[in-house]
Amino acid sequence: MEEFLQACRAVLGAQHVLTDAADLSGYLTDQRGRYTGKSPAVLRPADTGQVAGLLKLCDQYRVPLVPQGGNTGLVLGSVPDQQGNAVVLSLKRMNRVRAVDPVNNTMSVEAGCILQHIQQEAAAQRRLFPLSLAAEGSCTIGGNLSTNAGGTGVLRYGNTRELCLGLEVVTAQGEIMSSLRGLRKDNTGYDLRDLFIGAEGTLGVITAAVLKLYPQPRAQVTALAALQTPAQALQLLSLAQDRCGPALTAFELMSDFCLQLVFKHFQDQRMPFGTSHPQYVLLELSDSESEEHARAIFEEVIGNALEQGIIDDAVIAASMAQSKALWQLRENISMAQAHEGKNIKHDISIPISRIAEFIELTDKLVQQAAPACRMVTFGHLGDGNLHYNVSPPPGMQDTDFIAQQAAINLVVHDSVDNFGGSISAEHGLGALKREEITRYKSPVELKLMRTIKNALDPHNLMNPGKVIQV
Amino acid sequence: MEEFLQACRAVLGAQHVLTDAADLSGYLTDQRGRYTGKSPAVLRPADTGQVAGLLKLCDQYRVPLVPQGGNTGLVLGSVPDQQGNAVVLSLKRMNRVRAVDPVNNTMSVEAGCILQHIQQEAAAQRRLFPLSLAAEGSCTIGGNLSTNAGGTGVLRYGNTRELCLGLEVVTAQGEIMSSLRGLRKDNTGYDLRDLFIGAEGTLGVITAAVLKLYPQPRAQVTALAALQTPAQALQLLSLAQDRCGPALTAFELMSDFCLQLVFKHFQDQRMPFGTSHPQYVLLELSDSESEEHARAIFEEVIGNALEQGIIDDAVIAASMAQSKALWQLRENISMAQAHEGKNIKHDISIPISRIAEFIELTDKLVQQAAPACRMVTFGHLGDGNLHYNVSPPPGMQDTDFIAQQAAINLVVHDSVDNFGGSISAEHGLGALKREEITRYKSPVELKLMRTIKNALDPHNLMNPGKVIQV
Repeated sequence: MEEFLQACRAVLGAQHVLTDAADLSGYLTDQRGRYTGKSPAVLRPADTGQVAGLLKLCDQYRVPLVPQGGNTGLVLGSVPDQQGNAVVLSLKRMNRVRAVDPVNNTMSVEAGCILQHIQQEAAAQRRLFPLSLAAEGSCTIGGNLSTNAGGTGVLRYGNTRELCLGLEVVTAQGEIMSSLRGLRKDNTGYDLRDLFIGAEGTLGVITAAVLKLYPQPRAQVTALAALQTPAQALQLLSLAQDRCGPALTAFELMSDFCLQLVFKHFQDQRMPFGTSHPQYVLLELSDSESEEHARAIFEEVIGNALEQGIIDDAVIAASMAQSKALWQLRENISMAQAHEGKNIKHDISIPISRIAEFIELTDKLVQQAAPACRMVTFGHLGDGNLHYNVSPPPGMQDTDFIAQQAAINLVVHDSVDNFGGSISAEHGLGALKREEITRYKSPVELKLMRTIKNALDPHNLMNPGKVIQV
Repeated sequence: MEEFLQACRAVLGAQHVLTDAADLSGYLTDQRGRYTGKSPAVLRPADTGQVAGLLKLCDQYRVPLVPQGGNTGLVLGSVPDQQGNAVVLSLKRMNRVRAVDPVNNTMSVEAGCILQHIQQEAAAQRRLFPLSLAAEGSCTIGGNLSTNAGGTGVLRYGNTRELCLGLEVVTAQGEIMSSLRGLRKDNTGYDLRDLFIGAEGTLGVITAAVLKLYPQPRAQVTALAALQTPAQALQLLSLAQDRCGPALTAFELMSDFCLQLVFKHFQDQRMPFGTSHPQYVLLELSDSESEEHARAIFEEVIGNALEQGIIDDAVIAASMAQSKALWQLRENISMAQAHEGKNIKHDISIPISRIAEFIELTDKLVQQAAPACRMVTFGHLGDGNLHYNVSPPPGMQDTDFIAQQAAINLVVHDSVDNFGGSISAEHGLGALKREEITRYKSPVELKLMRTIKNALDPHNLMNPGKVIQV
C-alpha cells in the first residue's frame, strides 16, 4: 500500500493524498450518519488525466477504489466498507464548467460540479437545467449521473439519464473514454453512456458530462389540492395531464399525517385550508406563455376536478412567496419525520395505475407486521415514485424500532414486487440494497449484470461490493 | 445444418421453417434493393418461448442468426451476408399487443407489431405513441428498438430509446430476460434495457417491450416559413423554442432544391409562396389547449421572426388538409430524389449551434470532390439531424456517380467528425457503416463495445458482422 500511495503522490502531489485520520473522517461516513467505513487514503485528483493515472495505479497494484462526489447518497454507495483496503477517490476538485452552448442547449461539466452551481450557470444563460433534488446544494453531478438521480422534475424532464448527452469516463484499466459530443441523435453502436449512468461507479469513473439544457419557462405556478384518497389523486393526475400536457412539471402526493408532522416541527408553516383533509397533491405548472395563462389553466383543471367530485378544495399560489410556502410543506416532510425518531425509508415505484391499491393493501400488511407504527407516505406520484416511510409508534425506542427494520422491509418490498414495482426508484442499490435486490431481480438479469461487471472490471476494483456481488 | 433445421422444425412446426428459395427471397434483400444476402432458412417463431428454443439451438449448433422485423432498415442490418451460414429469425408473427394501461400511460407489445398498428391502438385509448417515421406502415417496433429509430417526433419526445420503459429479450444463450415493468423510475442496477436498444440484434433478440404513451394533444398546427440561410433557420428555432417550449413538436429544414425536386416529380404538389426562397422550415405545434391557441402562438412567433428579419415569409395551415399538404412537401423529398437517379445518402447529426457553418463548408468540400453534383439537404434541424444527400450532376450515369461514393462519404464524414458530429444519427451502423465507424470512434469506445459483445455473445452468433467486427 505504501508503494502505491507513493506513486499516487507522484501523480497528484502529496497534499492531495490524504492519509491522516482527521482528514479522512469526512469521507468515510454516509450522509445519514448510520455507517462509517475504513480506508487507507483519500485521493483528490484535479483533472481527468490524474484520474486516469490513479486508475492505472489501482489496476497495477490491485487496489480497490470508491468514487465519491458530494457523499449525499442514501444507500451507502459512496463510502468504503469495513475491509479497509479501498481508497476513496474524491472528484470534488474537478468542478469546472467546461463550456456552455446556449444555441445547442448543452453544457459540459466536470463530475465534481455541485448541482446547484450547474443550475445557476444555466440560468445565467437564460436556460434551465431541470434536475432538482433536496441535496442540490452539496451533491455533485458525477454522483447524480452515477446514481441516475430523480428528484422533482422527472415528470416533465426525466431522470438524470435523460438529461445527459455524453460522458467522459475513466475505465478500470485507466483509459479515458471521451464521448462528449453534444448530440441529440447518435446511433453509432452500443449505448455505453447509459451503461455507466446508474452503475454507481462499479464499471468506471465518470469524470465529465454533456448535459441537456432547456428554455426557461416564463412562469411557474403552484397549486395545492385537498382530497380524500390516493385513487382520487390519480384521477386528478389524468385530468391535469390531459389538460396541461408537458406543462405539468410536478405532481406530489402528501398524506395528512405528513403535513401534521411538518406543522408540529416547523412552527412557521401554515395549513392553507380551514380543515384538514386525508390527502393533498402539490401541482406545479411551467408555462412558456405567462403567469395569467398558467393560472387560467389551473383554474380550469381545479374547477373540473371540484365539479367531478375528485377534490374537496384547492388553492392556487398567488405569488412566488406563496408558491415557495407550498413547496416547503413538501420539502420539510423528511426533516419533520427525522424529528419523530429514527424511521425506515422505502424509495419505491409502482405502475401508476396500481398505486392506490398498493397503498391500501400494504398499509394493512405493515400494521400487521408492526402494530401502531405510523405511515409517512408522500412522493412523486406523477412518476409512480413513493417515499413510503414508516415511523415508530409514539414512545417506542429507536433501537426497538430499528430491530424491526428487516421484517418491515420484507413486507413492503415483497408487496412492491407483487405489484410489479421497484424497491429502489431513485436512490440506487449501493451496499444497502445489494443483497435485497437478489430476491426480486430475475437470475437472468443478475447474470447479465455480473457478466458485464466481470468483463469491464475483471479484478473487481471499481467500488467493489456495491450494486452487485461478483 | 440439416440436423439443426430438423430441431428447429420440432420447435416451430415445419411450416415455419422456410427453406425454399422462393419463400426466402423476400427476406434476403434490403429495402433499397442494393444488397442480397444468402441464408439456408428463415425461422418464424410465434412466441418468446419459441425464440428461446431457437436461440438455444443456435448456441448448441453454433449457427449464427440475423433477427429481422419489417426489413426496412437502411444500413444492411437486417439481412444476412454472403457467407450463407446465418439463418434469418423473422419476428413478424409475434405481433400481439399484450396490454394497454391508459392510466399508467403504457402499452406492452411484441417485437413484430407494426409501428402504425401501435399508433392506432394508442389512439383508440385516446393516447399518443409519438414515434413516427416514413416506414411506419411496415416497420416493426422490434426493429425500431434495435436501431433506436428517430423520426419526426424526436424534438419533443426523444428517440425510440426514450419511449421504452422495459424490454423482454432472449439472450445469446437462449435465456429469457423479462423486464417488462412499466415504471418511470427504477434504479436497481445496470441499464440492460438501453444496452439492447440500439444494439441492432448483436447482443440478443428483443421480443417484447413496454412503451410510453402520452396524452393526445388537442390540436396540431403546421406552418411553413421561407428564409435565406440555415443560420436564420437556427435563429427561428431559438425563437420558437423559447416561445413554444415543448409544444414545438417538429422543426424540419428543406432547401429550395429539395422542393424543386418535389414539384418536378409530384405534379399535384404546390408551392405555397409566390416566389421561391433559398430555404424553408416546416414547424409543427402540438397544443393541449385548442387550435385557436396554437394558431395565436404561431402568429406571434412568425410576427416576431418577420419583424426581426429572420424570415421572409410564412404560411400557417388553415386546415388539416393544408397541414397534410405541407407535410407532404417534406415527406416526398426522398422519393423525388430517387427519381433523379441513384443518390448518396448521409444521415448525420451535428451540434445544433454549428450546423450552418457545417453546411457552408461541407458544400464546398463536396463540390471540390465531385464537381456539379447536387446537394439535397433537408432534415430534422431541431434535433441537429440532417439528411445531407448528394444527387449526381444532371445527365451523369448512375454507375459513374456511385463509383464516387466512397470518396464523397469520406469528405462528408470527415467534415462531420471535425464538427463533433455523428455519421449515423438515426439509421444505425448495420453492415454498411461498420468499418467506416472505426475511423471516427475512439479506440477506447471500440474496445468497450467489443468487450461487451464478447461477454454477452462469446460465439459471435447474434447478427454477426453488424455494428462491430469481433
